[in-house]
Amino acid sequence: MSPPLWIAAWALLLHAPVLGCSRQAPASPSMLCAGHQLLPVMIPQAPGDLPLLEPGGCAAGRAPQAPSTRNDIRDCSADPPYLPPTATNTTARLAVLRGILRTHGIHAYIVPSTDAHMSEYISKRDARLGWLTGFTGSAGTAVVTWDKATLWTDSRYWTQAERELDCNWELQRTTSIESIATWILEVVPAEGNVSLDPFLFSIDTWNSYSRALHGSSQTLLPLETNLVDQAWGDQRPPPSSSEIYSLPAEFTGSSWQEKVAGIRQQMEQHVRRPTAVLLSGLEETAWLFNLRGDDIPYNPVFYSYTLLTNTTISLFVEESRLSAEARQSLRSGCPGPLCVELKEYGQVSAHLRHYAQGNVTVWLGTEYTTYGLYAIIPQEKLLEESYSPVMMSKAVKNTHEQEMLRATHVRDAVAVIQFLLWLEKTVPQGQVDEFSGAQRIDAFRWAQEHSRGPSFQSISASGLNAALAHYSPSNGSSRTLSAREMYLFDTGGQYLDGTTDVTRTVHWGEPTPLQKEAYTRVLMGNIDLARLIFPSNTAGRTVESFARRALWDVGLNYGHGTGHGIGNFLSVHEWPVGFQYNNVPLEAGMFTSIEPGYYRDGEFGIRIEDIALVVEAQTEHQSGEKPFLTFEVVSLVPYDRNLIDLGLLSPEQIRYLNSYYERIRAHVGPELRRQRLEEEYAWLQESTEPFPVSSAGTAAPGTLALASLLSVLLSELGA
Amino acid sequence: MSPPLWIAAWALLLHAPVLGCSRQAPASPSMLCAGHQLLPVMIPQAPGDLPLLEPGGCAAGRAPQAPSTRNDIRDCSADPPYLPPTATNTTARLAVLRGILRTHGIHAYIVPSTDAHMSEYISKRDARLGWLTGFTGSAGTAVVTWDKATLWTDSRYWTQAERELDCNWELQRTTSIESIATWILEVVPAEGNVSLDPFLFSIDTWNSYSRALHGSSQTLLPLETNLVDQAWGDQRPPPSSSEIYSLPAEFTGSSWQEKVAGIRQQMEQHVRRPTAVLLSGLEETAWLFNLRGDDIPYNPVFYSYTLLTNTTISLFVEESRLSAEARQSLRSGCPGPLCVELKEYGQVSAHLRHYAQGNVTVWLGTEYTTYGLYAIIPQEKLLEESYSPVMMSKAVKNTHEQEMLRATHVRDAVAVIQFLLWLEKTVPQGQVDEFSGAQRIDAFRWAQEHSRGPSFQSISASGLNAALAHYSPSNGSSRTLSAREMYLFDTGGQYLDGTTDVTRTVHWGEPTPLQKEAYTRVLMGNIDLARLIFPSNTAGRTVESFARRALWDVGLNYGHGTGHGIGNFLSVHEWPVGFQYNNVPLEAGMFTSIEPGYYRDGEFGIRIEDIALVVEAQTEHQSGEKPFLTFEVVSLVPYDRNLIDLGLLSPEQIRYLNSYYERIRAHVGPELRRQRLEEEYAWLQESTEPFPVSSAGTAAPGTLALASLLSVLLSELGA
Repeated sequence: MSPPLWIAAWALLLHAPVLGCSRQAPASPSMLCAGHQLLPVMIPQAPGDLPLLEPGGCAAGRAPQAPSTRNDIRDCSADPPYLPPTATNTTARLAVLRGILRTHGIHAYIVPSTDAHMSEYISKRDARLGWLTGFTGSAGTAVVTWDKATLWTDSRYWTQAERELDCNWELQRTTSIESIATWILEVVPAEGNVSLDPFLFSIDTWNSYSRALHGSSQTLLPLETNLVDQAWGDQRPPPSSSEIYSLPAEFTGSSWQEKVAGIRQQMEQHVRRPTAVLLSGLEETAWLFNLRGDDIPYNPVFYSYTLLTNTTISLFVEESRLSAEARQSLRSGCPGPLCVELKEYGQVSAHLRHYAQGNVTVWLGTEYTTYGLYAIIPQEKLLEESYSPVMMSKAVKNTHEQEMLRATHVRDAVAVIQFLLWLEKTVPQGQVDEFSGAQRIDAFRWAQEHSRGPSFQSISASGLNAALAHYSPSNGSSRTLSAREMYLFDTGGQYLDGTTDVTRTVHWGEPTPLQKEAYTRVLMGNIDLARLIFPSNTAGRTVESFARRALWDVGLNYGHGTGHGIGNFLSVHEWPVGFQYNNVPLEAGMFTSIEPGYYRDGEFGIRIEDIALVVEAQTEHQSGEKPFLTFEVVSLVPYDRNLIDLGLLSPEQIRYLNSYYERIRAHVGPELRRQRLEEEYAWLQESTEPFPVSSAGTAAPGTLALASLLSVLLSELGA
Repeated sequence: MSPPLWIAAWALLLHAPVLGCSRQAPASPSMLCAGHQLLPVMIPQAPGDLPLLEPGGCAAGRAPQAPSTRNDIRDCSADPPYLPPTATNTTARLAVLRGILRTHGIHAYIVPSTDAHMSEYISKRDARLGWLTGFTGSAGTAVVTWDKATLWTDSRYWTQAERELDCNWELQRTTSIESIATWILEVVPAEGNVSLDPFLFSIDTWNSYSRALHGSSQTLLPLETNLVDQAWGDQRPPPSSSEIYSLPAEFTGSSWQEKVAGIRQQMEQHVRRPTAVLLSGLEETAWLFNLRGDDIPYNPVFYSYTLLTNTTISLFVEESRLSAEARQSLRSGCPGPLCVELKEYGQVSAHLRHYAQGNVTVWLGTEYTTYGLYAIIPQEKLLEESYSPVMMSKAVKNTHEQEMLRATHVRDAVAVIQFLLWLEKTVPQGQVDEFSGAQRIDAFRWAQEHSRGPSFQSISASGLNAALAHYSPSNGSSRTLSAREMYLFDTGGQYLDGTTDVTRTVHWGEPTPLQKEAYTRVLMGNIDLARLIFPSNTAGRTVESFARRALWDVGLNYGHGTGHGIGNFLSVHEWPVGFQYNNVPLEAGMFTSIEPGYYRDGEFGIRIEDIALVVEAQTEHQSGEKPFLTFEVVSLVPYDRNLIDLGLLSPEQIRYLNSYYERIRAHVGPELRRQRLEEEYAWLQESTEPFPVSSAGTAAPGTLALASLLSVLLSELGA
């Protein structure tokens, strides 16, 4: 999947003057937005609106963002003001909120786009920023005072914000907390109160605001009551009431009891001897108890917290939503240390406050914990790490989980191959557009066994639209696919046994030389990283440049990260695996995407993305105690031969490609036949024909020299 | 030069479970020891002692270090205790110190190995740890209580510590501050006072102790009086009294007035509008005022601090030591904003305390500032960055500085080539040992124009000794060089126009296949990084793996960093340039070493080190606003042909090598002739013969296939 969360990390790495640890650590899923505001979540949008941007993401990538001097689409100084028809009238909402602010003696209220779990995607009920402002982009911060209202967002969303905000709102075209704080310091009166809901802010974001306002006369006041929710009132969507269910045993890596025992063992072995682990991330609880729900778009999770102590297990969730089977499973060990006590979702703070009064140590991952929960625990009773032990355990898939993900990818490849063949046949007739294309690939996936729908909103982009890394089409505005331009689709599926995410870029006509060169270099980068052999415990960020070098060689590059972890029927972006600076070292059993790209503004975009499993490598020697590692690519879809300039590839790259194609044939071929997809089978055979190694670019000089010698010799002998 | 400071960084990157910014930033020159204690300095040792280890360095590299269960060389439980003759009797010293501790009501006193400037090398006067303990390794921490004394050091120094400590001392074979603090918490009585000299601890180390003791009943008490100095009394070496002199104008990049103006401009343009810059690093003041001294071995610096404000310049230094010329230069702008006010070295704290009472903002680099100075400035008046603007400016050499460093390297190459030829002729006679070899290369350098001696203690290691990355020979124990084993020398020179550092590994006989393969792969790594093209602002750590990949391919690796910055007649390890996580992004004009290696315990060691200048690359395309970058290698010494397996190299690598050799011929050849070194000139011509590209390894399959076809054809035709 394209890089919503981590698109900016690489760019930041390059732009930050020093990326030492003296910089503030980023937090939350949007953990790549180092030193930037956290902007991790999207607001699902009513259909028929503007084209959605890819949810999630952070505001860098083009950092530092100087405030733009461009003209606003809105003309708020005209009489009457001009607003596009897409703008939302927020006058009444703001009036209600301001009434509440005055009642509480609050002079400025900060509204983020996050939820209480630092989720990448959020539910409609958590779309506070969208309701208040009208702005439906995934990333932004609003501040409302008694007479002003301002929204901060990054350059991806400037146009969208101008179309959606009314004249009550000023738009600030930057996202740094420093800029927000400076604005607040200017407009809030001395001795004024600045407030926010601490359960919607990561620890680091809170700290940034706190530092920025430190030394001023204003007070930063955490308020447990959310004032937007009060203003929203009964118009706020109700909490989800859909069923929370147990994953059938065949689709789990191990029982929840085994997982709990494993975490408790880590607690015992930890030098700080924590007495409890607190889980805030929705994936964490879902994974630990083998439960799934549908509270969040695309991610099969449900609202919950867990406090796992050495003797008790408290699951904070709406009990009535649990299926009978799920309840039975959770209660099967009662009473006893493997009994799950079900508690009200809203009781987590009170329960934690009570627990923290004892002689305890609470272990938590700061990246997924809000400041609100964190602040409940006295500092000396905290064991803070970036990621909880559950997050770390989940990252390394066991053999059964690996097998499931491999099997998922075989079926997923069938769907993608069906789509590629369908495109090949229908695009030349001009009947496919980006939107219908996206619908078609979703449909092919739905038809596969264990399918549970897409794992994110499909990116389907033709021609110049693909130059926007996060573009997704809507029904209303969708470009027609054509054999005259490139087409990029970045899509994935949720299946009971795994989550997929694959990107292919294709051209059915005559690509330009630059398109062909850029595609080939992106492919070379994908291959170079995929076939890399590296020591155990290598950090992803120290090797991700291998995916860039072929582009760098000719002055090209891409502005997003190179990969992210992925779950077993969980999140398509699964932390902490990946190639960014805050990802953990690579270990055998981890899955990550590998996805270099190249984007040419106003012309075309290329991305080639595969999911790869970290496996042990067979090396002649061995330095260090552990075997070296490499990747096994589990996405099994051929690349577009029409776009490969074989002369650029080295013999090693061609040999790698041929062995990958052999694996595709071996794994996907039989499945196509089993599904009686004979035309697709023939297409696959054709598309995976081995490439001649002798045509490799770097081999050319030597080979050519000998070949010409041979030809001279033959002609002389013949003469 | 081999990697004293940064040897551990890479290993740490790999071993740390998460290297996100939630980890504590390391500080001080030993800035690679993330999360480890600072162990940056050495104690110069009396000659005739044990072989010296390379100064500097930090305690990781093999992290995490579990306490060893090995037997101590000492037998303190015997009656009488057994001690090797190399041990120092510390009974009297400890008694004096303990008397002082009791007088001050202090229960534990922490003694580090650092000086007040976070210098990599320290003077004898600052060798407090060595005097107190007898231990002369460069890295360690001692804690003395009323009845206990313990030294912590890392595995490089365990044997040395056992040989040098007497039975007053317990040896702890780890270096984590957590372990030191745990020990203190165990042995110091409740409500006890733990003390240290805050002017010898980096900000981060202080914070680590502070955190570790937080919540206990013990108090961490910074004491400005150094108690070891009190105990040492008049036996402590006096301060240096040698002359501090101005660098002649021809050897400076710009006048000190221009440098001061540049820093003041940065102050004005900084968003925080600092009113002053505080300089604690000795290189910083030396560079800013174009002054040099000899207070520290190998580094031409002198004890000093600078407080540069927007209107005044205060230089804290022993005024009487300044040469007349230097004094005149510094006072030439008096009175006025370019007048340097000379103040007592010891007055810096008082002066800073006074200055900080005003409406001021002090800009400083935390990596080179001690907690003592830092704590003087109120938090809201601090502008903290990892490196001061002087450190950052110094890192990017201007055209004249670049030209000087290039010229230095031509003369340095002459010395190294003379040495290589001399070795070739004399080693087979068995007359050279490691120590006499080191003396000889130093002598060849001294004979070159502008020479000011070695830039660090020469590493000269034969056979298995080279497997210790930091080995240096002593007169007493030195291995004879032989045509039957490999020889590694890592040496450098100080010249008025620049500092050099180069490593070559040679074999005059028949290397084993593994030696040849490993050497070739180390060379491939050196070439791959040196010829890399990368975007402007790329962080070194994201590309250093290119120097490792050829080794990784067959399961080999090395446990140290890949490079470090270097100065113009300043430090051989010049921060913040390099390939570690806390180095700043690479910019045109920076110089860095590139030095992959391979070490086989008990057998041999390989390192190939060159200094390279970051330059703009010529690329076909360009992504981003700035040109792409690459390296120009300025070290100009050929590699050992006897150790290169040409079949492993790609055609690109061979072409690169040939073009590098062309540059060596073009630059060093004329200088050899100018110095009438005709035999060396002939040797150079022979050693830089171009390699045939057709023999490249990757071309082999295609070539071989065609060659065998050709041979079959010819034999058939012939038949």
